Amino acid sequence: MFETLEVGKSIKKSDFNDLELPLRHQLLQAQFELAESDHAVIIVIAGLDGAGKGSLVHRLNEWMDPRGIRTNTYWEHSDEEEERPFFYRFWRRLPPRGEIGIFLGSWYTQPAQAAVNRAIDGEEFALACQQIEGFERMLTDDGALIIKLWLHVSEEVQRMQLDGKAPDTQQNPRISDRPYELRGKYRETLDVSERLILATDSSHSPWHLIEAADRYYRDVTAGEIILKAMQNHSCRPRVTEKSPDDEKLEPAGPQPTVLDSVDLELRLSKADYREQLAQYQSQLQDLAWRAYRQRRSVVAVFEGWDAAGKGSAIRRVTQAIDPRLYRLVQFAAPTEEESAHHYLWRFWRQLRRDGRATFFDRSWYGRVLVERVEGFATHGEWQRAYSEINQFEKQLVDHGCIVLKFWIHISPEEQLTRFRAREKQPHKQHKMTEDDWRNRDKWHDYELAVDQMVSRTSTRHAPWTLVSGNDKRYARVQILRTFCDTMEQGLDELTDRE
Amino acid sequence: MFETLEVGKSIKKSDFNDLELPLRHQLLQAQFELAESDHAVIIVIAGLDGAGKGSLVHRLNEWMDPRGIRTNTYWEHSDEEEERPFFYRFWRRLPPRGEIGIFLGSWYTQPAQAAVNRAIDGEEFALACQQIEGFERMLTDDGALIIKLWLHVSEEVQRMQLDGKAPDTQQNPRISDRPYELRGKYRETLDVSERLILATDSSHSPWHLIEAADRYYRDVTAGEIILKAMQNHSCRPRVTEKSPDDEKLEPAGPQPTVLDSVDLELRLSKADYREQLAQYQSQLQDLAWRAYRQRRSVVAVFEGWDAAGKGSAIRRVTQAIDPRLYRLVQFAAPTEEESAHHYLWRFWRQLRRDGRATFFDRSWYGRVLVERVEGFATHGEWQRAYSEINQFEKQLVDHGCIVLKFWIHISPEEQLTRFRAREKQPHKQHKMTEDDWRNRDKWHDYELAVDQMVSRTSTRHAPWTLVSGNDKRYARVQILRTFCDTMEQGLDELTDRE
Repeated sequence: MFETLEVGKSIKKSDFNDLELPLRHQLLQAQFELAESDHAVIIVIAGLDGAGKGSLVHRLNEWMDPRGIRTNTYWEHSDEEEERPFFYRFWRRLPPRGEIGIFLGSWYTQPAQAAVNRAIDGEEFALACQQIEGFERMLTDDGALIIKLWLHVSEEVQRMQLDGKAPDTQQNPRISDRPYELRGKYRETLDVSERLILATDSSHSPWHLIEAADRYYRDVTAGEIILKAMQNHSCRPRVTEKSPDDEKLEPAGPQPTVLDSVDLELRLSKADYREQLAQYQSQLQDLAWRAYRQRRSVVAVFEGWDAAGKGSAIRRVTQAIDPRLYRLVQFAAPTEEESAHHYLWRFWRQLRRDGRATFFDRSWYGRVLVERVEGFATHGEWQRAYSEINQFEKQLVDHGCIVLKFWIHISPEEQLTRFRAREKQPHKQHKMTEDDWRNRDKWHDYELAVDQMVSRTSTRHAPWTLVSGNDKRYARVQILRTFCDTMEQGLDELTDRE
Repeated sequence: MFETLEVGKSIKKSDFNDLELPLRHQLLQAQFELAESDHAVIIVIAGLDGAGKGSLVHRLNEWMDPRGIRTNTYWEHSDEEEERPFFYRFWRRLPPRGEIGIFLGSWYTQPAQAAVNRAIDGEEFALACQQIEGFERMLTDDGALIIKLWLHVSEEVQRMQLDGKAPDTQQNPRISDRPYELRGKYRETLDVSERLILATDSSHSPWHLIEAADRYYRDVTAGEIILKAMQNHSCRPRVTEKSPDDEKLEPAGPQPTVLDSVDLELRLSKADYREQLAQYQSQLQDLAWRAYRQRRSVVAVFEGWDAAGKGSAIRRVTQAIDPRLYRLVQFAAPTEEESAHHYLWRFWRQLRRDGRATFFDRSWYGRVLVERVEGFATHGEWQRAYSEINQFEKQLVDHGCIVLKFWIHISPEEQLTRFRAREKQPHKQHKMTEDDWRNRDKWHDYELAVDQMVSRTSTRHAPWTLVSGNDKRYARVQILRTFCDTMEQGLDELTDRE
């Protein structure tokens, strides 16, 4: 694979000077058009040490307008990042629509290094490649253009570069804290590189290989690849057929849904409620500390009908937990900044460090609930969200998170009663909006959306809990009990002695 | 994941009768429109035993025009198929554009069964899922619509079905030769099914889960999913920006290519040629038989410039091998039938059984050579062909094939000399066409295409051999020597004693 990258492609300095100006002009033009568009550009600079990756990044920033470019390097380890799932560090730095993100050191670096050092086996390497594939597909499905450049130099050129003996030094001062890590491992690195490239070379995000021994050739070629890709991409309009959910498959009238399996008759007496509430809250308090000591985070999602009692149920959970250990985040319509990113971006950035809990009052499931029903997401967007969400939660679980998901269910009659009661109580009137009544009219559409949501995203690693909500007391205790049971099961018993 | 599929969705027979006629009418209409379109529809029917997969297939054939549908079942094992790479059996039965292929038992069956029976481990299962993902992406990139239905029944319903005790028997007589294989393994099957669905649920080919206990609900729902998918798909026009290769990135004039590394001065004297030819042909004869005994096939690709001496070089190879053991296939422009399929289809169907050799005089590399240069393939089509070809060859190698790839290189001057000589020799004049001179004008474009082809597809498992072709004798011996060395290395030494 790499033999074509050692044939001596090069450009004379004088030619480079002639080529630079028009190329630069066109790149700026492409960047200008990007700023007006609705997609982001992600440039991955990968390849061998000594191939001048840093130097190329420098050049790109020089050629284009640095105000629309975010360069991301991952040379210093951050405990902030290591205490979150692997892709968190990349999600948080993704460029918004209209901008360019350059990744020097990317999601490829760690699996490649781990494979060279034999820190991961074949299965782990294959899974890492699969995750990368899924991550990139998510971004390109969202309209992003991903340009992946692989810079290659021969073993001899690499040695000269790393020793600082290159005849024409192409390097900036090295910024890596382990610059020579691959020395003596040239062949292994090529082996792993080939496997990595083959496994992640896809139609939506292909690799470009560049011979990098000559810095003029390297930079001009990279610039032209980026230019071509940006020019071709902007021609392709995104398919946006926004329209309310047209997929209400309902052969012969309303069918039972998974919500019908929830027993809404369940009740808890005041006395039992008090006793169980106290018991589970006390247990949860201990468990939250145990999770902290074991560096395990908890991610809990609360969804449910309007007036299902979500807020008050969440309060019963948070009451039990030391405020240092949890954060409650609420989601309504996305902000302007959030809209400029993939819809999962605003949830990724809320993830807390290992050992803490994050409670989501409404969540990424909005994509397949309100956004689907109201037509804010296209058919393709909410359809593929199931697999995107499954991948996201899988990454949480693989990192060690305990994931809980609650849908608080009430009957339409109960909802009506609560709505009417709210309207009568002055201090609760503000809770009622036009939207609440409008949503109520779409009860059945939401029911179908919930049914499909549970069917596609209730997985073994992150199952849904359907909460019986007509009796608020029962619902609160059911949620607390589920918390305790799940954490008890998920946490290590022994570490408690610590 | 499967709990929403046990809630009792059903349709009364009378309602079914009302629904069937309009649905059937619309399906026929969609099928009619498909026939006029440029894409194929692939329907995968998967799910648990006893869920009525066969019965649904029966219904679909009843509802639509069976002339445009090919139903593929894989219930009888075929040694023809088992002696070829796994996906061969599916490639050969893919529907052409404008038609529907139903797969009852598909690429999902074997990995699922193997995982339930623990015949494969986690890494193998992950790789199988990755291969499926790549296979499906290849087809959807080519415009195909893939509709994947998963039929679920509860353990109880399954038991009744398998025992023939279902109150309303929904089954045709069972055709599987191991109908009860999953009995007693219900939970394991669900586990594996969930992993399989999660790993292969992609934006380009999503899964649809159907509660299948009630046959009326099952069939109507499946019919409506298929209808919706076909209606939505036909609206989406394929991007076809056919144009001659616009990606000649040539910073500052012609760059050296990998072909420049070929030493064209290499010569062999007549005497040395005779001796070495005889030696290697005799060795190859033995090796071909050894490969046969070891059930290892050989796939060899011959590409090269016009008049490079491809034909005569191939003859020196075939001379050495028993005609029962090899087949030579030549490729020119695709036939009408071939054009109606993915471009790899016509090569897959030529693969021979284990132990035999297939020689390809021109090959799938036409996609990134002539089709690229002449603009017969769009930019996207030839760009993604690199990864498609790598996947294809990986599957050959994984199955045990020995893959050889030769590019016979000559200088443009040598070509001119040979062209002129041909024109003068009456018995060789027929070999010269207008095209040969036209192609010659595009020498440089082809050079770039070859350079990139080698760079992207010369892999550790299937490397390219660049043949020094100015001296025909040297070229022939180099090819024969490469054959012998590669086979010697690839075959087991010991089995020779057999």
